[in-house]
Amino acid sequence: MNRNPIKTAVVGATGYTGLEIVKLLLNHRGAELVSLTAKVDETIAIDRVFPRLMGRLEMECSNLDVDDVCGKADLVFLALPHTVSMLFAPRFLAAGKKVIDLSADYRFPSPVEFEKWYGAPHRDPEGVEGAVYGLPELFRKEIADARLLANPGCYPTATILACYPALRAGLAGPEGIVVDAKTGVTGAGRKASLPLLFPEVNENFKAYSLAGHKHTPEMEGVLSRAVGRDVRLEFAPHLLPVNRGILSTIYLKLEKEVSEEEVYDLYREQYGREPFVRVYPPGQLPELKDAVGTNNCLLGFKVNPRTGNLIVVSAIDNLLKGAAGQAVQNMNIMESLPETEGLI
Amino acid sequence: MNRNPIKTAVVGATGYTGLEIVKLLLNHRGAELVSLTAKVDETIAIDRVFPRLMGRLEMECSNLDVDDVCGKADLVFLALPHTVSMLFAPRFLAAGKKVIDLSADYRFPSPVEFEKWYGAPHRDPEGVEGAVYGLPELFRKEIADARLLANPGCYPTATILACYPALRAGLAGPEGIVVDAKTGVTGAGRKASLPLLFPEVNENFKAYSLAGHKHTPEMEGVLSRAVGRDVRLEFAPHLLPVNRGILSTIYLKLEKEVSEEEVYDLYREQYGREPFVRVYPPGQLPELKDAVGTNNCLLGFKVNPRTGNLIVVSAIDNLLKGAAGQAVQNMNIMESLPETEGLI
Amino acid sequence: MNRNPIKTAVVGATGYTGLEIVKLLLNHRGAELVSLTAKVDETIAIDRVFPRLMGRLEMECSNLDVDDVCGKADLVFLALPHTVSMLFAPRFLAAGKKVIDLSADYRFPSPVEFEKWYGAPHRDPEGVEGAVYGLPELFRKEIADARLLANPGCYPTATILACYPALRAGLAGPEGIVVDAKTGVTGAGRKASLPLLFPEVNENFKAYSLAGHKHTPEMEGVLSRAVGRDVRLEFAPHLLPVNRGILSTIYLKLEKEVSEEEVYDLYREQYGREPFVRVYPPGQLPELKDAVGTNNCLLGFKVNPRTGNLIVVSAIDNLLKGAAGQAVQNMNIMESLPETEGLI
Amino acid sequence: MNRNPIKTAVVGATGYTGLEIVKLLLNHRGAELVSLTAKVDETIAIDRVFPRLMGRLEMECSNLDVDDVCGKADLVFLALPHTVSMLFAPRFLAAGKKVIDLSADYRFPSPVEFEKWYGAPHRDPEGVEGAVYGLPELFRKEIADARLLANPGCYPTATILACYPALRAGLAGPEGIVVDAKTGVTGAGRKASLPLLFPEVNENFKAYSLAGHKHTPEMEGVLSRAVGRDVRLEFAPHLLPVNRGILSTIYLKLEKEVSEEEVYDLYREQYGREPFVRVYPPGQLPELKDAVGTNNCLLGFKVNPRTGNLIVVSAIDNLLKGAAGQAVQNMNIMESLPETEGLI
Repeated sequence: MNRNPIKTAVVGATGYTGLEIVKLLLNHRGAELVSLTAKVDETIAIDRVFPRLMGRLEMECSNLDVDDVCGKADLVFLALPHTVSMLFAPRFLAAGKKVIDLSADYRFPSPVEFEKWYGAPHRDPEGVEGAVYGLPELFRKEIADARLLANPGCYPTATILACYPALRAGLAGPEGIVVDAKTGVTGAGRKASLPLLFPEVNENFKAYSLAGHKHTPEMEGVLSRAVGRDVRLEFAPHLLPVNRGILSTIYLKLEKEVSEEEVYDLYREQYGREPFVRVYPPGQLPELKDAVGTNNCLLGFKVNPRTGNLIVVSAIDNLLKGAAGQAVQNMNIMESLPETEGLI
Repeated sequence: MNRNPIKTAVVGATGYTGLEIVKLLLNHRGAELVSLTAKVDETIAIDRVFPRLMGRLEMECSNLDVDDVCGKADLVFLALPHTVSMLFAPRFLAAGKKVIDLSADYRFPSPVEFEKWYGAPHRDPEGVEGAVYGLPELFRKEIADARLLANPGCYPTATILACYPALRAGLAGPEGIVVDAKTGVTGAGRKASLPLLFPEVNENFKAYSLAGHKHTPEMEGVLSRAVGRDVRLEFAPHLLPVNRGILSTIYLKLEKEVSEEEVYDLYREQYGREPFVRVYPPGQLPELKDAVGTNNCLLGFKVNPRTGNLIVVSAIDNLLKGAAGQAVQNMNIMESLPETEGLI
Repeated sequence: MNRNPIKTAVVGATGYTGLEIVKLLLNHRGAELVSLTAKVDETIAIDRVFPRLMGRLEMECSNLDVDDVCGKADLVFLALPHTVSMLFAPRFLAAGKKVIDLSADYRFPSPVEFEKWYGAPHRDPEGVEGAVYGLPELFRKEIADARLLANPGCYPTATILACYPALRAGLAGPEGIVVDAKTGVTGAGRKASLPLLFPEVNENFKAYSLAGHKHTPEMEGVLSRAVGRDVRLEFAPHLLPVNRGILSTIYLKLEKEVSEEEVYDLYREQYGREPFVRVYPPGQLPELKDAVGTNNCLLGFKVNPRTGNLIVVSAIDNLLKGAAGQAVQNMNIMESLPETEGLI
Repeated sequence: MNRNPIKTAVVGATGYTGLEIVKLLLNHRGAELVSLTAKVDETIAIDRVFPRLMGRLEMECSNLDVDDVCGKADLVFLALPHTVSMLFAPRFLAAGKKVIDLSADYRFPSPVEFEKWYGAPHRDPEGVEGAVYGLPELFRKEIADARLLANPGCYPTATILACYPALRAGLAGPEGIVVDAKTGVTGAGRKASLPLLFPEVNENFKAYSLAGHKHTPEMEGVLSRAVGRDVRLEFAPHLLPVNRGILSTIYLKLEKEVSEEEVYDLYREQYGREPFVRVYPPGQLPELKDAVGTNNCLLGFKVNPRTGNLIVVSAIDNLLKGAAGQAVQNMNIMESLPETEGLI
């Protein structure tokens, strides 16, 4: 890494995702953190917001001033809520900055689809056109040239990586898929909310947004485009009483008889050289804890001849491979850095 | 309750289920606890095993002596591991006692099926024939006359109650069903085990026994007999980092178009007078915590017209409606006591 | 219980304490629930707020209308925040109702002390004079005649019961006491708050309000009056990642040599006939989980001859013996009902 | 780091501490992992024991063969139970290897004291004499020359660092100290055990080993030697329902009036240049979660003029600064590597 480090800014630094990006950049040898902003009452030292940064990062976090950020940074991470990113991304792009957006604003190929599922008009339709969907395992080449990168949703990352090989190979059919997904609580963001209080979540478990979660069209859209068939799935998210991680159990209808060894070979062929995908051998299934704290997507599976189902279990850390880690992985690709730099 | 209380014994009193039976019987106005046994190194006061009983129950727990128990009790709860109950149930029955068995030993209509899934020969084939499957919402009449009652498994209770009305009415088809079930850790019993250590389960989540869990034939068998069609389901259990409770998300294929109001009416018609089933209105889903500590089965649902699925969410306390609570409910029916006595 | 049940109202029914009072009253054979109020946007069925009450209680919860409550109830539980109770208690008393107040407003013998620690003027100084401090183990006789009962704080309950026998007997000195207390999260109430979000509390532990917690003068004051010496203690509360329960480890300076058997005898003499105190024998210590779900205060201890300390471990359920359970116990005493009615 | 990496072995690689050492060494630029051993039934790939290592470390773990390890490694980490390390350490030393022992076997200056508290004869009394106590903040110079390093206990690390400045400066007295310590469950090791099952620990909290924990003489001994006065403390450990971390609340008797600013200055003077100690300013206290995942000891405090106490709150990750992290820090010092290498 004999070049100057990339100057990076994190916009939205006081959320759980923002903190993860900051922590990753502190250990990154090809990037430098030059600006932190967030919606704050007044400028505040970041180690007052997150005391675990004490002694590691002395930097202030102030309200976003686009010009100020543009004066300092070359690449901007937007860790903002949906419908807010689209207000700022064009300004950073216009100033010649690269943007990695962690919201949903640029994940759809058309503004219309966004508007349909998110119930709000899209403020930057041109931006949508130029954006690249940042799932390296499927779109590495496009990512390398991206200026506006749409970082995938956490649930879609776990689902798409799990389904893609089986669907692409025609092993499983594109209909009748069930995705029973379970996420840790950081997935809901860091804001005061009665249903997210400790006593409401602890010793509890629940489904939510059945038949209508906004990540559904993202999964279906990306998979459909990637395999060239219309993929339709039932996506059912649940809230786990853990801080981090997503584990999805995915039920696919087999279209032919297949052994678990054959499935294993298929997935290994697809992902064998991927630095951040681990395919488990038959007889072994991923557990949530083995994904948490890493940028890996863990994939395991089971064939059930009684029912004709292929069951794929997929586990990621929602804040890493599902958000900040994948964002840094994408930055590495966009900046021609080693893809694993800064990511354990 | 102007009759003498039933004299009851708990065999296997040092497990999680045993403790729950004991606690329920302490608040039961129609039953009396006369004997506690378990596999113990030496006779021990039960409040040394479970200090929360201190001041509430002064009774010793010793190794099982069938004759001794027969001399004291009229009804015996067997909270024993699978394949152990079948060694003792016939002896209690022969002595004229009623038996409520909480293991799987008598849940199948034929010893053959038991042997196939549990991998062990059945030692009491005649017993199997006379046993009654103790799910009151389906078999209340038979339960009233039972002498050997097979208390249902925890997962089957949650699944059967959730599926029965839709399958019986032909609303959903008997194939292609997916049961994604999640249980608290007490479901695994109270015995030293590395994978059940706190640091292995806490902040973790995992699937287990995919495509081969022993509760599968119990669910399929009871549902098939109850609705008169061959029911086939994919049962996928998972381990939640909570102490108690089961929440199952069940995906059924709709065979006709239906509104959520119609589903609600159907389930209310079935369960409206049941003391321990709660049907949630459209738009509201059960959460695990609202079942825990009660003998209720909570049922909610969602119709997804995009996929043609009926999703039913079913929640119980695995130790109450899934074990000890249902056992006491069955005792109440068998003894012509008010069905809700001793059960909040 | 051949008399008419007491008609009771719960003011502040949507908090964690309010819910516990409701649940206890539903199982109480001498009391009837006739009114539920809380600060709500609009009148709402209580089983929408707490779905676990579905099928058990059909009652609406509306904003407080004092006249309306007075028209229905004979005894009012005030589960309100500090400084709010004092605005309403006088009005209920004036209407001839009995009041059990679960806030701190009437726990001090003088308004001045309240104002000093709570930083707000007391609006009902006369009320303070007539109020009775509701710790049955020390003040049962006064409670029987109370019209305005000040239900003790959760921390003070656990501390006072633990220290009283040793201090009264002169076994330990009234100075140099350290109370290291740990509470579950429901102790902080049910309101949206960033520091109480699941990911902020889970896998975390912290001290708070060191050297200045508002329960300090309540403990010191009651103990000083009860033993006739000026008791001074260091009270250090901590937040545990559990829903319920308080466990306090209390360090007292022994004033004489003593065996654990002697301490045991002393505590048993004090509490042996108390329905809700359990004294553990030497060698056994209470754990939090054995107090949770009960109205018991569990007390265990250890003598350390090396340091000259008597260590007392005290455990309660903060919502039961620390709030709602003790409130019902007090109601039973005030209404000449069996003291344990409705309390397991 | 232009020298050959140190060749290291981990003996006892399948415990929680062993895994942490392995993970740290994988990110260490000055050390290489050449051997993993543990008590295993048969040689097993380490990523089967810990699937999170899949794709990161392909190495087998076999039963300990001292000669084999000596043939490969230059420095050996012993992550073994107490009384086992002393059987092997001498053999590695005799072969010219450096040893970092994470058990208690070499933490005492005399075998007699070990035998008194651990109830077992010491098998390597000569070893004891040459061992260096590995707390870098107090003994950095001695550590640099150590060949047999006794890595401190987790509780002693948190306590000694918290007390040392105040005791050394005579600010607080050496008697009447109370150390109320709380640890996560990994502190108890990774072995099947009923009291460490998830349902026994979760939603629970308890004190243990009051007045007799084996870490007591380690704390008292090191502090006494370091400050030249006889330090006596009441050490009371508790078990928290979290995976990792120790938070100790320590009560010291002030010997003079002092402001919090003065205490802050004193601690900063002591630790201001330490890479792994963070002193919190007055008004801010460390929380457990901010220590977990780091090699830091976090220190905060409160002066209580009412009681004359200085309260110090100390937080570490029991597996890092309390075990594996401190071991690697010690290795760095012993090998003249940058002290922070491999430690975030």
